[in-house]
Amino acid sequence: MRATYMYAAGDVRVVTAPDPKVVETTDALVEVTRSCICGSDLHPYHSLPTTPAGTSMGHELIGVVTEVGADVTTLAPGDFVIAPFAISCGTCEFCRAGLQTSCVRGGFWNDAQLGTAGAQAEAVRVPYADGTLVKVPGVDPATADEGLLASLLTLSDVYGTGWHAAVRAGVTAGDTVAVIGDGAVGLLAVLSAKQLGAERIVLMGRHQVRTDLGREFGATDVVAERGEDGIGQVLELTGGGATRVLEAVGHLPAYEQAVGIVRPGGVISRVGVPQYADGPIGWPFFGKNATLTGGPAPVRAYIERLLPGVLDGTVDPGRVFDRTISLDEVPEGYAAMDSRQALKVMVKA
Amino acid sequence: MRATYMYAAGDVRVVTAPDPKVVETTDALVEVTRSCICGSDLHPYHSLPTTPAGTSMGHELIGVVTEVGADVTTLAPGDFVIAPFAISCGTCEFCRAGLQTSCVRGGFWNDAQLGTAGAQAEAVRVPYADGTLVKVPGVDPATADEGLLASLLTLSDVYGTGWHAAVRAGVTAGDTVAVIGDGAVGLLAVLSAKQLGAERIVLMGRHQVRTDLGREFGATDVVAERGEDGIGQVLELTGGGATRVLEAVGHLPAYEQAVGIVRPGGVISRVGVPQYADGPIGWPFFGKNATLTGGPAPVRAYIERLLPGVLDGTVDPGRVFDRTISLDEVPEGYAAMDSRQALKVMVKA
Repeated sequence: MRATYMYAAGDVRVVTAPDPKVVETTDALVEVTRSCICGSDLHPYHSLPTTPAGTSMGHELIGVVTEVGADVTTLAPGDFVIAPFAISCGTCEFCRAGLQTSCVRGGFWNDAQLGTAGAQAEAVRVPYADGTLVKVPGVDPATADEGLLASLLTLSDVYGTGWHAAVRAGVTAGDTVAVIGDGAVGLLAVLSAKQLGAERIVLMGRHQVRTDLGREFGATDVVAERGEDGIGQVLELTGGGATRVLEAVGHLPAYEQAVGIVRPGGVISRVGVPQYADGPIGWPFFGKNATLTGGPAPVRAYIERLLPGVLDGTVDPGRVFDRTISLDEVPEGYAAMDSRQALKVMVKA
Repeated sequence: MRATYMYAAGDVRVVTAPDPKVVETTDALVEVTRSCICGSDLHPYHSLPTTPAGTSMGHELIGVVTEVGADVTTLAPGDFVIAPFAISCGTCEFCRAGLQTSCVRGGFWNDAQLGTAGAQAEAVRVPYADGTLVKVPGVDPATADEGLLASLLTLSDVYGTGWHAAVRAGVTAGDTVAVIGDGAVGLLAVLSAKQLGAERIVLMGRHQVRTDLGREFGATDVVAERGEDGIGQVLELTGGGATRVLEAVGHLPAYEQAVGIVRPGGVISRVGVPQYADGPIGWPFFGKNATLTGGPAPVRAYIERLLPGVLDGTVDPGRVFDRTISLDEVPEGYAAMDSRQALKVMVKA
């Protein structure tokens, strides 16, 4: 089959790779219908050292089950499924608690221990298929609307991640929320905060095409400035800070901005993987009795909650995709996202 | 009157100071019955630069109202009161939300803006008396049991601070809690966790007299080791980490220990004022979906909740005091706490 590998920073290639096979009795094989490129894929795109064997890429997909191991009980060939970016057994303490990203048996795509490969490919092997995959009832991917497929694909990562930011922040009716970052996750954090009843949503971002979509998703205010200027504007707009701050970037200045704009007693919820080890948690944070929460989103825990709104068209999170390419065009897709010509790129396998 | 001033690191003196006077119509004057020395007073005791005018010391007291301003409505001369370590108006957004340490009008003892002096003195002026002070009904400080006075005094800071750690961590029935620090706040965090129903309480501390008291307050396990050894022991005792970690020290290694022992999805609640600006909040913290919360305790919000148990003898938090001195002996009191000959020193004014 064809699959995407990265060999060094900036060097992405679609190559011929071995077809996936059922290895464990709890595995399923899935033929990929749509995958996509994630903002987090750009981190290795900037920094991966030369890797002769290549790194298998991609962690978001929807697809059709083609084969199941002997112990898979909830899925059968032909099922149309969403695969979250984390693989989870479904039965351990953390899976039962809805924290599948801490599953004691699971892991991720392109995971040496699990022997998984990446999702920017024609097919994947899915360990712990019962625990990991979620069946989408009543949708035939061969005939489904393209917008619906895009929205279903966001449930594999970015929509669930934006939702996680809002849920962990405790967003509730009437809240004043600030969202830092106008990437796909930030925009879907806006959508999620709106769904959870936030009254005021200040979006911090400086790419107008994206912040315009943020307004359509529910942002009431947009602040394009960063740093002290941005902090000052949010403090003024909110009369002293936002009760809930959703940080969807992952770089230190975004966290520093969050500390600056969080209201005393408020919550900073991070879902952008921090690209830093240490950050300010001394008096400016402590003195306000602020809370810092978030982490890798257990999107598996949210799919059942979010799927009905996608299926009935109440929400259309798939609008974060602004380009669709074929699998062979994936290298161009990375370049387009890296140069910000595309917000998020969908891949037709 | 006599009052305590610090003039440099290690240089504490009891001197003659002006008697306090009612300045604002919302003030009260309070004659101090008991005050005490706080672990946090040891920070300037180690680091205060030479200060010719001196710094007025002390922020914990119980006492008797001697005079009230014209607009004080809930207090009268003769009332026996607890004075929290933070002064709060009682009416602003944050006071109404129970976050009196973020009061927009209030402040602290020895606060230049409020014109307050310290509590290690014969008397104090209390701004926003209605918002700040809590009347203790049915107790005559002249005849009250010494243990009761000690327990009432803990409501001005250390008991409320330990309680804040436990409440912000969300301690609830059946929880596994780890408490870092065997100072007065750590021990009262143990007591608070026990009151809130924690099933297992691991106390990290290495002073056996103190950890023995911690066991009496409810600790089920004591870990004397620090650093990686201490983390390893707690992980083993708890089968993978504590759901709630109460950090009552304020130094970076204590926070690092907290990150090491918190269970995925768990909470670190800090109440020791951080003596550091930056700390680890990257992947080891983020990857676990851990939460960091806490801050200066709004003890004013907790006194009504905690007072009945003190008055009826259900709890005796005053046991953290292991030495009582006169006001003139305060310099020796600082030295005794600094050398760890005393856990916490009470001052008879």
